[in-house]
Amino acid sequence: GLSTPPGPEPTLDLGGIFPPLATPFSALQEVDYAQLEANLRRYASIPFRGLVVLGSTGEYPYLAPHERLEVLSCVRRALPRDRLLLAGSGCESTQATVELTVSMAEAGADAALVVTPCYYRGAMSSAALVRHYTEVAEASPIPVVLYSVPANTGLELPLEAVLTLAQHPNVIGIKDSGGDITRIGLIVHKTRQEDFQVLAGSAGFLLASYAVGASGGVCALANVLGAPLCQLESLCRQGCWQEARELQHRLIEPNAAVTRRFGIPGLKQAMEWFGYYGGPCRAPLAPLSPAQVEELRGAFSSTGWL
Amino acid sequence: GLSTPPGPEPTLDLGGIFPPLATPFSALQEVDYAQLEANLRRYASIPFRGLVVLGSTGEYPYLAPHERLEVLSCVRRALPRDRLLLAGSGCESTQATVELTVSMAEAGADAALVVTPCYYRGAMSSAALVRHYTEVAEASPIPVVLYSVPANTGLELPLEAVLTLAQHPNVIGIKDSGGDITRIGLIVHKTRQEDFQVLAGSAGFLLASYAVGASGGVCALANVLGAPLCQLESLCRQGCWQEARELQHRLIEPNAAVTRRFGIPGLKQAMEWFGYYGGPCRAPLAPLSPAQVEELRGAFSSTGWL
Amino acid sequence: GLSTPPGPEPTLDLGGIFPPLATPFSALQEVDYAQLEANLRRYASIPFRGLVVLGSTGEYPYLAPHERLEVLSCVRRALPRDRLLLAGSGCESTQATVELTVSMAEAGADAALVVTPCYYRGAMSSAALVRHYTEVAEASPIPVVLYSVPANTGLELPLEAVLTLAQHPNVIGIKDSGGDITRIGLIVHKTRQEDFQVLAGSAGFLLASYAVGASGGVCALANVLGAPLCQLESLCRQGCWQEARELQHRLIEPNAAVTRRFGIPGLKQAMEWFGYYGGPCRAPLAPLSPAQVEELRGAFSSTGWL
Amino acid sequence: GLSTPPGPEPTLDLGGIFPPLATPFSALQEVDYAQLEANLRRYASIPFRGLVVLGSTGEYPYLAPHERLEVLSCVRRALPRDRLLLAGSGCESTQATVELTVSMAEAGADAALVVTPCYYRGAMSSAALVRHYTEVAEASPIPVVLYSVPANTGLELPLEAVLTLAQHPNVIGIKDSGGDITRIGLIVHKTRQEDFQVLAGSAGFLLASYAVGASGGVCALANVLGAPLCQLESLCRQGCWQEARELQHRLIEPNAAVTRRFGIPGLKQAMEWFGYYGGPCRAPLAPLSPAQVEELRGAFSSTGWL
Repeated sequence: GLSTPPGPEPTLDLGGIFPPLATPFSALQEVDYAQLEANLRRYASIPFRGLVVLGSTGEYPYLAPHERLEVLSCVRRALPRDRLLLAGSGCESTQATVELTVSMAEAGADAALVVTPCYYRGAMSSAALVRHYTEVAEASPIPVVLYSVPANTGLELPLEAVLTLAQHPNVIGIKDSGGDITRIGLIVHKTRQEDFQVLAGSAGFLLASYAVGASGGVCALANVLGAPLCQLESLCRQGCWQEARELQHRLIEPNAAVTRRFGIPGLKQAMEWFGYYGGPCRAPLAPLSPAQVEELRGAFSSTGWL
Repeated sequence: GLSTPPGPEPTLDLGGIFPPLATPFSALQEVDYAQLEANLRRYASIPFRGLVVLGSTGEYPYLAPHERLEVLSCVRRALPRDRLLLAGSGCESTQATVELTVSMAEAGADAALVVTPCYYRGAMSSAALVRHYTEVAEASPIPVVLYSVPANTGLELPLEAVLTLAQHPNVIGIKDSGGDITRIGLIVHKTRQEDFQVLAGSAGFLLASYAVGASGGVCALANVLGAPLCQLESLCRQGCWQEARELQHRLIEPNAAVTRRFGIPGLKQAMEWFGYYGGPCRAPLAPLSPAQVEELRGAFSSTGWL
Repeated sequence: GLSTPPGPEPTLDLGGIFPPLATPFSALQEVDYAQLEANLRRYASIPFRGLVVLGSTGEYPYLAPHERLEVLSCVRRALPRDRLLLAGSGCESTQATVELTVSMAEAGADAALVVTPCYYRGAMSSAALVRHYTEVAEASPIPVVLYSVPANTGLELPLEAVLTLAQHPNVIGIKDSGGDITRIGLIVHKTRQEDFQVLAGSAGFLLASYAVGASGGVCALANVLGAPLCQLESLCRQGCWQEARELQHRLIEPNAAVTRRFGIPGLKQAMEWFGYYGGPCRAPLAPLSPAQVEELRGAFSSTGWL
Repeated sequence: GLSTPPGPEPTLDLGGIFPPLATPFSALQEVDYAQLEANLRRYASIPFRGLVVLGSTGEYPYLAPHERLEVLSCVRRALPRDRLLLAGSGCESTQATVELTVSMAEAGADAALVVTPCYYRGAMSSAALVRHYTEVAEASPIPVVLYSVPANTGLELPLEAVLTLAQHPNVIGIKDSGGDITRIGLIVHKTRQEDFQVLAGSAGFLLASYAVGASGGVCALANVLGAPLCQLESLCRQGCWQEARELQHRLIEPNAAVTRRFGIPGLKQAMEWFGYYGGPCRAPLAPLSPAQVEELRGAFSSTGWL
């Protein structure tokens, strides 16, 4: 099994699985709060550590700031207090990120998940990013979790920036979606004396991340297969690596199908098959073609989930 | 000299140089409209074809929607009617882009410059982008100019999407900042029967773009060296290629310094040297270090501009 | 601990650690066979599964075909028969690869490690690579191990090509140096019914690879820290994941230093510190600067190896 | 028209078009010298400045060193002395490159075209490449032309290395296949005082390269459409830019088809249509499928060449 980590007790224990909630839209692409609440009721029985709202999977770039806050408030109302609520509050400018983070805290978020700004990526040096996150962490009433997702931002938060920021008392972890397991292991190792936890950003490398010392995972696939992911987490924590491996293996293809391969439209389609409301994405994200739906279904059926 | 293009008369003649205006901020990083107006007065004597507001150089991702509209209104008031005003109105979602484009038109923009959405770049297929732009073009009261800037978006608007969109009556051109001169030549060639014009997105390849048939340029460097860029344009139009080449050569290094190398902070620093207000950028864009300022100065002094 | 794999008995059990031998050169950059033999004597007491000659770490692109054969013959003579000898035999053309593979077999190699051809990478489709490897596997008297090393070749052997080739009776495994742990897990999973084994191509993700079902590792770092790597392998096999993790963590930085960061010149420098002959590389690979040597040393001393 | 360049008289005037010869193979993939000679006879009437043998288009990585020398000797015998013969002599190691360059000189090459070594690209710093090329230039009895082809090598010869090497008396130019026209213009500008000439590495950006001051082109397409490329060169030299542009536009798609899109197999197929011997490539390069042949033909027929 996993040993007690040698570092200090965490401010906020992030250990476990978090689904980054998909945001339900109506046919007219308006946020559908009733369906959001219905999904939350279905998730209530799954032993998630908490939820993430307005991560990449939540189509946050397609929501206006007021919509981001309303989604958060809706989820907060529905969520028992013992479940953590992480809210994506990253914007391109430092100032807007600070403002939204403060608003998110006021609306009940337990921690802020802050994506790297990326439009001027050529200027986003390690020093610039350290300044950005430090300013946000200083101003934020709630702890900050770093968020590196190169597939969307074209930018990996540099290791040295992560290690510097891990020393800030209000920076408590990172969601790393890059999937570079060597880097994940090194971050765990180099922050072992800090109040800092590493969350795997995808179900595809969840077991491997636990094996090198991660604390949990924020996995889009948990919108669909939440219970098996919590089971995988439990097996890893108990040291049942062989069973864990077999389960992990069955999750790779469904995970790839709802992330890299077909993205959020694929995820929302799969949600329908598993009893959740999926619905449309906002444009320009488009529904899958019938052939793509078939391929998506194959990724779940060939692995025994459908 | 350049011949009359074989295609139809353009809806809106984009032939010439456009500076994509830097947005002036005060020390507190608020938009400084007085300095914006002062810069516009200084630009008034330069034979620009028009201005671009809220392109990448205008730090548009750091401005709230209402700020984007106010900046546009301010510039429209200051700009003579015979100068074109192109307004960056691209957002991540189709819906937000449509809304902002309509607002921009109402506020006096002559055309909308619409950057590719990019956060979910894995899903931004040629088909998805064609749908996005078509919907925007249908809804827009003013002509639409496509905008491809891979250095910022990590995404090049695919050639086939460009050629499809060029056939839409309300899509009148592209600003191509990628710098692939073969592609630029091919776009000119394949759209020669359309009401479609190509603008070079950087001063570094302006002459080459004219040589292969482009109509003009939207060049960050024009914030600093507007007159020489208009002179370069004029030499190209008159067929004085040798003089043009000598001028182009002297502009490459200053251009690289205020774009790729030092970005908008470098551009704003250089603006100060040439009699404009530069001022700070919004964070996380940071001012240059003294060593960087020296290197920047060297790019202008070694080429005889300072 | 690890269970018995569900698939067939392997033709050749690749389970364990293989150092990809550095090729010793004299001051005049000639192959130094005496030093090669001296290194082999020092490696003899380490429980490696076998050795790899003429992998990327062996500077194979800098050796003439006759040198490649002589190095192999030298190692074969020195190596006990119960240790496996894998020989890099990949060339750009299929024909040259076939010829060298046959020669390697005649000179005593137990298996051929065949890197992807890469110069015309735009043409190296999955189909082209399947044909290439199939032709080599058909002609080879010894089993073939695929070798994907995108950092050097700019090309990843596509997953679908790996899965197709895994079905060939004379293709028994892959050395995967890309470090994408999701892919590694998926390859293990999808080839579980085949006579096919996966070797991690770097010490940085060795534990994670074992965790997802790999059989062993070909790790440049084993030229320097062979015993700890064999210990890591043993801990993984016995299911002592916590101890394994602590050891893995201490190996990441030294490994990065002798691979990505300082390459073969760094590896050869470190070999000197651990009692092996390192010596120069062939040009254009250059010795480290004194500052680089210090940084390299720091990677080993800060982790307690020096 | 183009003015006399301001720099010194060149050692060797590279001004004009060079086809990088495809190497003809028999059905058994052996070099077919008779067909090579037949092609040379057909090329004799085209006003090429000279020929390149064993560039990327010549499949040099698939030829043994003795084959490379034999191909060169064959071409030398057939080529009038007033036509330049450039020979690709680059290898991965400095030592092998020196040896092959010397042999090429002895066999009659007028200049050596030396590709960047690339397998250990992480270690190919500007300093390492400067040392490599300097050592080759020192040892070479004939002038050296640098060769940067990132699509194949994954490596661009850094600008600063080019500028440093341009000062070496035995380095007389560069073939730049990257197509970054800003860089090409800057190289021309920064080497204007040197005995250094820039050759465009592809027909797609030939006109643009002339416009910014290049001296000529080494264009795969010249194996097929040599006369039109020489005409394009002539129009550029005479300053007939409009006619040049129209011709350039018609050449982009055929060029893309025989380079990026379909590679050498596409080029060899097209050669057959224009009266040359194309024949097979060496494996793993594979013949086009019938559908690809149709698409290739379309690129030539839609532009009026077939």
